Amino acid sequence: MPRRSFGEFSCSVARAVDVVGDSWTPLILRDVFLGVDQFDDLVRDLGISRALLTTRLGHLTDAGILEAELYQERPARHRYRLTAAGSELVPILVALMLWGDRWRSPEGPPLRLEHECGHLLGARLRCEGCDGEVTAASVSPRPGPGGRLAVGTAVVAERLVRAQAAREQAAHDQPAQDQTTDPERR
Amino acid sequence: MPRRSFGEFSCSVARAVDVVGDSWTPLILRDVFLGVDQFDDLVRDLGISRALLTTRLGHLTDAGILEAELYQERPARHRYRLTAAGSELVPILVALMLWGDRWRSPEGPPLRLEHECGHLLGARLRCEGCDGEVTAASVSPRPGPGGRLAVGTAVVAERLVRAQAAREQAAHDQPAQDQTTDPERR
Repeated sequence: MPRRSFGEFSCSVARAVDVVGDSWTPLILRDVFLGVDQFDDLVRDLGISRALLTTRLGHLTDAGILEAELYQERPARHRYRLTAAGSELVPILVALMLWGDRWRSPEGPPLRLEHECGHLLGARLRCEGCDGEVTAASVSPRPGPGGRLAVGTAVVAERLVRAQAAREQAAHDQPAQDQTTDPERR
Repeated sequence: MPRRSFGEFSCSVARAVDVVGDSWTPLILRDVFLGVDQFDDLVRDLGISRALLTTRLGHLTDAGILEAELYQERPARHRYRLTAAGSELVPILVALMLWGDRWRSPEGPPLRLEHECGHLLGARLRCEGCDGEVTAASVSPRPGPGGRLAVGTAVVAERLVRAQAAREQAAHDQPAQDQTTDPERR
């Protein structure tokens, strides 16, 4: 089966992974975020080959995640910065880091992050609606406007549409359901 | 330069990426989370080859992210479930998805997640200390107990330790600094 481009999948996880799914990429973004933003420093920090780093930086620049700033003309030297889209990946890196601290760091976290409030993170993904925690158990999938029955979401999209239809049918069949669950009437 | 195992890097991002950094892995975890948890359904949904899926599922099971449950004996058929460690990756997938919705979905989100409060996500990573948002601009790195001056963090660890020493020296040189910034005395 030929490998499809994840960017063509009708799935925002796949499209995000298409940008940052290479294993080196999160570490390059980590370093740029931490201020290790020059080519030679990245090579030295990560032990990545110069050829591979060049490819990855080009990919991230093309994708609008990093931007290169010329800080020396002869020879040309660039420093890399996170764009707005790149900066919004930082909380995801932070969440990955906290997961690694929790599940893969028996000797203690290699690095801590201090929040502007002075607290060493500890952070949770919270719903913008209720401020409650977003966990595997607290969210349910619904079909979205960009969904497609295609490779990458062939089964998922089908099931979501079917479940949504069942929910709508149930709501149609029982229009007075809200009343019977009214605590005043039980 | 030989490729090191990210699991050996003294960095929790690298160790998390060592588990989930393969491009297929987040999509497999997405599917299992969404209830697409059987081998043939995963193949059909993702268009992944059976050989590659077998490898990835074995890796995720060995890493304690998924567990296989036998639901049919002859022929043997398994369904996959997220372990506790795997479930804690779900908020990271959700954050990746929301990033993809925002930056890579001009036609609208392919899928929405409804939080238990009824709100369609929208979610933010928030500090456990102050409930403030965790952003690239609101966190500062500090050295942690598991830090090492080694490949993967060669420059980062050095700089963190140096910055920490400078902070401690500054605090030592100015023990009365808190008083002079006391709003009552300004």
